[in-house]
Amino acid sequence: MSLGGIEAGGTKWVCAVGNGPDDLTVVTFPTTTPDETLDRAGMFFAEHDVDAIGVGSFGPIDIARGLITTTPKPGWANAEVVGTLRATLQVPIAFDTDVNAAALGEQRWGAAVGLDSFCYLTVGTGIGGGVLAGNALVHGSSHPEIGHMRIPHDTARDPFTGSCPYHGDCFEGLASGTALRARWGKPGEELADASDVWELEAEYLALGVVNVVCTVSPQLVILGGGVMKQPSLLDAVRERVRGLLAGYVTAPELVAPALGDRAGVLGAIELARRSR
Amino acid sequence: MSLGGIEAGGTKWVCAVGNGPDDLTVVTFPTTTPDETLDRAGMFFAEHDVDAIGVGSFGPIDIARGLITTTPKPGWANAEVVGTLRATLQVPIAFDTDVNAAALGEQRWGAAVGLDSFCYLTVGTGIGGGVLAGNALVHGSSHPEIGHMRIPHDTARDPFTGSCPYHGDCFEGLASGTALRARWGKPGEELADASDVWELEAEYLALGVVNVVCTVSPQLVILGGGVMKQPSLLDAVRERVRGLLAGYVTAPELVAPALGDRAGVLGAIELARRSR
Repeated sequence: MSLGGIEAGGTKWVCAVGNGPDDLTVVTFPTTTPDETLDRAGMFFAEHDVDAIGVGSFGPIDIARGLITTTPKPGWANAEVVGTLRATLQVPIAFDTDVNAAALGEQRWGAAVGLDSFCYLTVGTGIGGGVLAGNALVHGSSHPEIGHMRIPHDTARDPFTGSCPYHGDCFEGLASGTALRARWGKPGEELADASDVWELEAEYLALGVVNVVCTVSPQLVILGGGVMKQPSLLDAVRERVRGLLAGYVTAPELVAPALGDRAGVLGAIELARRSR
Repeated sequence: MSLGGIEAGGTKWVCAVGNGPDDLTVVTFPTTTPDETLDRAGMFFAEHDVDAIGVGSFGPIDIARGLITTTPKPGWANAEVVGTLRATLQVPIAFDTDVNAAALGEQRWGAAVGLDSFCYLTVGTGIGGGVLAGNALVHGSSHPEIGHMRIPHDTARDPFTGSCPYHGDCFEGLASGTALRARWGKPGEELADASDVWELEAEYLALGVVNVVCTVSPQLVILGGGVMKQPSLLDAVRERVRGLLAGYVTAPELVAPALGDRAGVLGAIELARRSR
């Protein structure tokens, strides 16, 4: 069996064919228009003769209809991802959020093997989260939007009003890579030595993690994404989470994704496998 | 078949025998010491010859071991609820949180019939939440502690430091009945006409609901508990939730429990049924 996976991001698409971390052919290209991007993905899979495709997509998405919905990304609102792929590829296509896919990848091959209740959080351009509870992905009426929860924001310490175009200082508006760049005037990579930057970042990330812990009681929280590459940020978040929970609730383990940047596309492969 | 249910609260225990809302014999008594309270419950069920018992308990609890764990309630930390009942009653005993039980009750007979993803929140002495996702109760490593998530707190508008002995101004510390009484110097019932009290309360409750919505994407949120009896508070929360979500995420329906104050004990009966 040959499986296809797409990590459909707002900046780039990662397409792969294979069956796991040790058997994977990958191609990456920038996200341009929906037509051009979907065409390129379609051609890649047509060449590789896959039996099923999984798509982990940036969102928000309508899972049942196979669409990206209210994204602010120009040209992509209401883009028909599944319908367009299906027009050229006659195979089952599974569609879910990028973070739900990454969570599945980590459960199958990564940091969450053997666990049935955990959360995968990514902190990059935006913040997103995928949740498994009782060994099933949490979908609810659509899918989690963990980046848009509200967390405490001490405006005396941090007068930045937040970068979210919908909510201002929601979790993502305060703690994403976009927020870091807007608040400090340069991207996270150029702020590596500024300890106050990372103390504040750890505080916000810990508040978001605490809220996830209080809502779904995960056995593990995986923290991935570009922002988490800052050395010692994960340690700082871990310490603040323990402090905020104050012994009332046991802090779950906090770890980096074992699959690194491949969690998303491998998770898409796992989505494909489950669609069959 | 005869089923028993206990709504084990911090103030009172409600014990019932029956099969549903129209077939229920109920007895209520104050929560005193664990020995005395469990003894009284045991005697009630021994008289009624039940086939199974469900217990929805105040918490936090250890579901697997049948214990109440780190409660600040004097005498009740590490109380062995299930073990003590089992010593006198030779029937299956199911044990879960009061709010998980209430959620099951509302799903079987109340506001959530036919739904598989929803949240039951109670706002009383404390704040607690039960979550169903994909038609299963969310347990995770133990159970949700929704009352202890962190929400924004504008200390210029509300200098109250919060009533939670563990976290100060967590959700429960700002918005429970205990917080209302501590902030304003009298209980909610005596503040019915003070519009500023309820504007602030609606704001905090809406922030908590938004965080639950962003984390588990429920089809419905049920808001119960004594504080929600304030007229028009539910309407105000509904409006603020819509405002805070700002169209990015669709607001779920917000309703009162259809079973009213019987949600907990009926849910315990449903827990008992499922244990068989």
